[in-house]
Amino acid sequence: MILRLLALLAALLFASPAFAQAPAPPPGPVATIASPGNILSVELHLDPDGRPAYSVRRFGTEILSPSRLGFLLLNAPKLERGFQLASQATSTFDQTWEQPWGERRFVRNHYHELRARFTERAGLQRSFDVTFRVYDDGIGFRYEFPDQPNLRNVEITEELTEFALTQPATAWWIPAFEWNREEYLYNRTNLREVGTAQTPMTIRTEGGLHIAFHEAALIDYSGMNLTNMGNGRFRAALTPGTDGAKVRRAAPFPTPWRTLQISDNAAGLAMSNLILNLNEPNRLGDVSWVRPMKYVGVWWEMHLDRKTWASGPRHGATTENVRRHIDFAARHGFGGVLVEGWNVGWDGEWFGNGQDFSFTQPYPDFDLEGLARYGRSRGVQLIGHHETSGNAAHYESQMEDAFALYQRLGVGAVKTGYVADAGQNKVRAGDGSLLYVWHEGQAMNQHHMRVIEAAARHRISINAHEPTKDTGLRRTYPNMIAREGARGMEYSAWGNPGNPPEHEPNLVFTRMLAGPMDYTPGIFGMQTCAPGGVQTTWAKQLALYVVIYSPIQMAADLLVNYEANPRPFQFIVDVPVDWQESLVLNGEIGDYVTIARKDRASENWYIGSVTDEEGRLLQAPLSFLTPGRRYRAQIYRDGPTANYRGRPEDIVIEERIVTSRDTLTLRLAPGGGQAIRLVAMR
Amino acid sequence: MILRLLALLAALLFASPAFAQAPAPPPGPVATIASPGNILSVELHLDPDGRPAYSVRRFGTEILSPSRLGFLLLNAPKLERGFQLASQATSTFDQTWEQPWGERRFVRNHYHELRARFTERAGLQRSFDVTFRVYDDGIGFRYEFPDQPNLRNVEITEELTEFALTQPATAWWIPAFEWNREEYLYNRTNLREVGTAQTPMTIRTEGGLHIAFHEAALIDYSGMNLTNMGNGRFRAALTPGTDGAKVRRAAPFPTPWRTLQISDNAAGLAMSNLILNLNEPNRLGDVSWVRPMKYVGVWWEMHLDRKTWASGPRHGATTENVRRHIDFAARHGFGGVLVEGWNVGWDGEWFGNGQDFSFTQPYPDFDLEGLARYGRSRGVQLIGHHETSGNAAHYESQMEDAFALYQRLGVGAVKTGYVADAGQNKVRAGDGSLLYVWHEGQAMNQHHMRVIEAAARHRISINAHEPTKDTGLRRTYPNMIAREGARGMEYSAWGNPGNPPEHEPNLVFTRMLAGPMDYTPGIFGMQTCAPGGVQTTWAKQLALYVVIYSPIQMAADLLVNYEANPRPFQFIVDVPVDWQESLVLNGEIGDYVTIARKDRASENWYIGSVTDEEGRLLQAPLSFLTPGRRYRAQIYRDGPTANYRGRPEDIVIEERIVTSRDTLTLRLAPGGGQAIRLVAMR
Repeated sequence: MILRLLALLAALLFASPAFAQAPAPPPGPVATIASPGNILSVELHLDPDGRPAYSVRRFGTEILSPSRLGFLLLNAPKLERGFQLASQATSTFDQTWEQPWGERRFVRNHYHELRARFTERAGLQRSFDVTFRVYDDGIGFRYEFPDQPNLRNVEITEELTEFALTQPATAWWIPAFEWNREEYLYNRTNLREVGTAQTPMTIRTEGGLHIAFHEAALIDYSGMNLTNMGNGRFRAALTPGTDGAKVRRAAPFPTPWRTLQISDNAAGLAMSNLILNLNEPNRLGDVSWVRPMKYVGVWWEMHLDRKTWASGPRHGATTENVRRHIDFAARHGFGGVLVEGWNVGWDGEWFGNGQDFSFTQPYPDFDLEGLARYGRSRGVQLIGHHETSGNAAHYESQMEDAFALYQRLGVGAVKTGYVADAGQNKVRAGDGSLLYVWHEGQAMNQHHMRVIEAAARHRISINAHEPTKDTGLRRTYPNMIAREGARGMEYSAWGNPGNPPEHEPNLVFTRMLAGPMDYTPGIFGMQTCAPGGVQTTWAKQLALYVVIYSPIQMAADLLVNYEANPRPFQFIVDVPVDWQESLVLNGEIGDYVTIARKDRASENWYIGSVTDEEGRLLQAPLSFLTPGRRYRAQIYRDGPTANYRGRPEDIVIEERIVTSRDTLTLRLAPGGGQAIRLVAMR
Repeated sequence: MILRLLALLAALLFASPAFAQAPAPPPGPVATIASPGNILSVELHLDPDGRPAYSVRRFGTEILSPSRLGFLLLNAPKLERGFQLASQATSTFDQTWEQPWGERRFVRNHYHELRARFTERAGLQRSFDVTFRVYDDGIGFRYEFPDQPNLRNVEITEELTEFALTQPATAWWIPAFEWNREEYLYNRTNLREVGTAQTPMTIRTEGGLHIAFHEAALIDYSGMNLTNMGNGRFRAALTPGTDGAKVRRAAPFPTPWRTLQISDNAAGLAMSNLILNLNEPNRLGDVSWVRPMKYVGVWWEMHLDRKTWASGPRHGATTENVRRHIDFAARHGFGGVLVEGWNVGWDGEWFGNGQDFSFTQPYPDFDLEGLARYGRSRGVQLIGHHETSGNAAHYESQMEDAFALYQRLGVGAVKTGYVADAGQNKVRAGDGSLLYVWHEGQAMNQHHMRVIEAAARHRISINAHEPTKDTGLRRTYPNMIAREGARGMEYSAWGNPGNPPEHEPNLVFTRMLAGPMDYTPGIFGMQTCAPGGVQTTWAKQLALYVVIYSPIQMAADLLVNYEANPRPFQFIVDVPVDWQESLVLNGEIGDYVTIARKDRASENWYIGSVTDEEGRLLQAPLSFLTPGRRYRAQIYRDGPTANYRGRPEDIVIEERIVTSRDTLTLRLAPGGGQAIRLVAMR
């Protein structure tokens, strides 16, 4: 009795497992893998209830504490606890591959991999695999559902993946599941104040670490957002699907990669190749027909409300207007002319009525065949335009014909559009009825894949607006040439508010980590319908051609503004869109950034530097130039009175000779920038 | 009556000047000046009461709102309001000057100057001048009291100078007027939470601007601290004097320069030459006798409590021990041997009893003459030591004899010491009595000037510990070769807490902005009396020789630790202390920093990189190397298990060939670093 009393007392005092049957303290990691340079490491854990988790260390310091892995399923018990580690294997990979086009030609893919299989200890004894690829500058991991008798059709209602940050941080993020798609201004808040965020979401910890959360190879799955669970813990929030399951797949299949790009500075994030490296190599074979280019178009004049997409007296896509654009493009060496509003369907209330669009029938005042022919004779392509207003089902019913038509006419690139409120895309259900779905759900991701494959069959590249997020699929499908997927220049035409000066330095370290963006820079006419107009200087507009990477880059302004300003326009004429190498020289998220890129077709380099509402004095060492070689630096810089609020058009254009030993001092006005062309001399 | 009622009503409603005789709204600036590149500008203002103020803009954006200028006086009415602008003049200056020794050989001094005279509109009609020197990367301004009948003897009780910041910010700072002198760990707080801070105080605004507040040319005046007045407003808090006045001077005289170093990034602060440029040129003529050098010494063994300063069985400064140090120095090419505890006075309670020290009489077991002679025969100087325990009066009574003795013995440098609590230095009053004074008050600043001038007469350089703050006087007096003035390495021997890993990356962007520091790095014996011991890796200890600039640099550890570790020690043997050029490659305050310096005597370069408690992966482009030339990079880096907490001694030493085209990736362990010697090849 006394003994039992003592035991009870001890149990009360110490609550130790021996007495109280509490779970054993969590054991050490069940598996571990470190990056090639031993910078990052990942540990896998199982808690006493058999819940799988992973944690991440950098230089031995935990930056993600044990974070859950698992799923809730619609058609089966959850995959969340009761697991054991059935097997594990590690491997090393180091390969350099070549991009057909891109921000750099050669990409090194060097990682250590850990593949682990978790199997339920009892009951259904189902399994899933987790594969971690650990780089020195980031981590990717994905689940793989093996072929197994007790889990053939997987119906995922929630992915339980978590990211449990250990440090306070500042976050740059845009909200998920609001009415708009991806076209928000970025919030800069304490990490605590994040709600549910789209990815990429980028943070800077108090210790100075920069981390971007995103995903790679989003194929036949639902897009991942991040929900704040409090205390630095974030959980995957998959985009809803067409019914109770957010993802329906037949095993075996892998999920997309969940990615963390990790760097001591912001520049390191923007230099990362993680997203591309985690995608599969090119599946299309010869893609020499994918042609990076600059283009002009019938577009900005509609956003300024001077022309209309619809037919009528102010119709933009007329034969005469497009011919003028072709002439201009030919004269200045642009490869394409985008024509919006060329096809039947724009005249009624097109928003929400994508079924009214024809993708093959031009308006009568637009001579599609003749203009295509005329363009070809002058070396200029028409760039196609397929606005769907989100009716993917209707688009799919015509797209084969539409691509065939464009192929016949020599159109090599099509800008698609999904202008619909978030959650208001339309796809067809198995029974033929229409379902309303999100832009980034599984159904739309399947749709985009069908589009890209159909386009590839017709040697057409796709530049999707209001798209699904970029997850690096351009590596596998190099005709996925660019997209929008963020607040573009048109908000500077009519947005309220317009895009403030910090928008572009925000984009570089958030949205642009995902891939190329068709931001459509090059505006000289700064007075628009947006309050404050275009909130940059001219020099910053030029710098955007280097800073915001896209292989298909618009000179978006009215032609008259270029004709009236041939000297600053010359930079837009000169700047290439395909690069041998890209270097981020400096930058802070939302503050400023300076990028140098080397032309793929010559020995010339280009520098772009942009700032937010603060003026900056930055150093750009030219060490990337070939030693001993001289370069003519053609400098487009903010003039002494330049200011995005005051005189945005004050630009100084000057030339000097430089070598790799020089360091340029860049003086950026508030809302300003600087663009430099470095021409290698004989 | 009705009219008068209406007027009263209007006055109540609108409180407009016409009715209420309120002061007129403040007029625009009365004078203005912009920096050479139009980056920074200063405006002078007078409010309706004639209060002078200045404001600062950067790229047109106000970064200091109108901030007061003026004084309270002990012997006269305050100089604070009722002023008019009597005159103003502007000028331009652009000159490159050469440092006899330093972190770079050539320094460009390029500024625009505005000199304004404010004169009281009535009454005494006294005047003061304000001179602003505006650089692209900073601002200095000072007051000048002209010769005038109504203000001959100026007795300043408060300097009203203010700095009214417009943006929220983070501040790195140490407190003023506490018991210690300058030997604090840095606080990193919101700007709002600063109390009264010593300078340099460094801030980073929410907009990403980096600003360091300090002063230059502190001569015959009281040191300035900064008091938080709330809402981003700081006011000069002069160090108290010996009576009610903090400064007593006869007109004409200038105050020290109040300085703001301003940069878009932390590196820019550490590259600034502002403090030096605001000092007067060399007044000593030929200073070829000022000799930068490395030294070893009888010092660390006392801090480890293995030896004593006092005489007795564990006396450190014995003939035999010093002879061993001379042999070691000669063998490894060190220029000097510091000997502390060599002179009579250490045996009692010396703290607070500086009057007991003799500065000429050695202890019997220390053969001063013989050792000096032996050192000379081996090419090694003794480095003198004058601990005063803050009794400046007593030191002054002997220093002439003491310097003469050292000069005769070939001692070229003396480490002075003022170990006393803050406010407990002793100087002599006019009536011969002793007064207790602060380390940075006017009396001690006068004392340090007398010391430096006396030393110069004997061709001796001064390395002052527990000094007054560095304000760039080394330009005028190049024998002011280094000083302490911050928490040095000895806190890693016995401090509780010791110096944490963030201490050095804090120092670089705060204390080091003032000038060279005798930090005494090079410790390999990491177990000390401080909890956690020396909180760096070995590689970081080596990197400190490049990162913490001093022309006189100690290899501070016990000789046995060097003899046992000749391979890492080799970097200390090789690294120079006098530089042709210095470049800050990257850095964040308190986080990490990488600095490259070129040897003044060869074509070799050296890189040092250090981090705080976080590991880092940093890029170091070698663009500063001569193009086309090959360099042997001798790399001392953290080994795979290195960690300041775990295995600090894990160091990898390796060699590779590099050119200016290479970019080194620096992997720094937590609390780690990397040191690199780049030897130019034939």
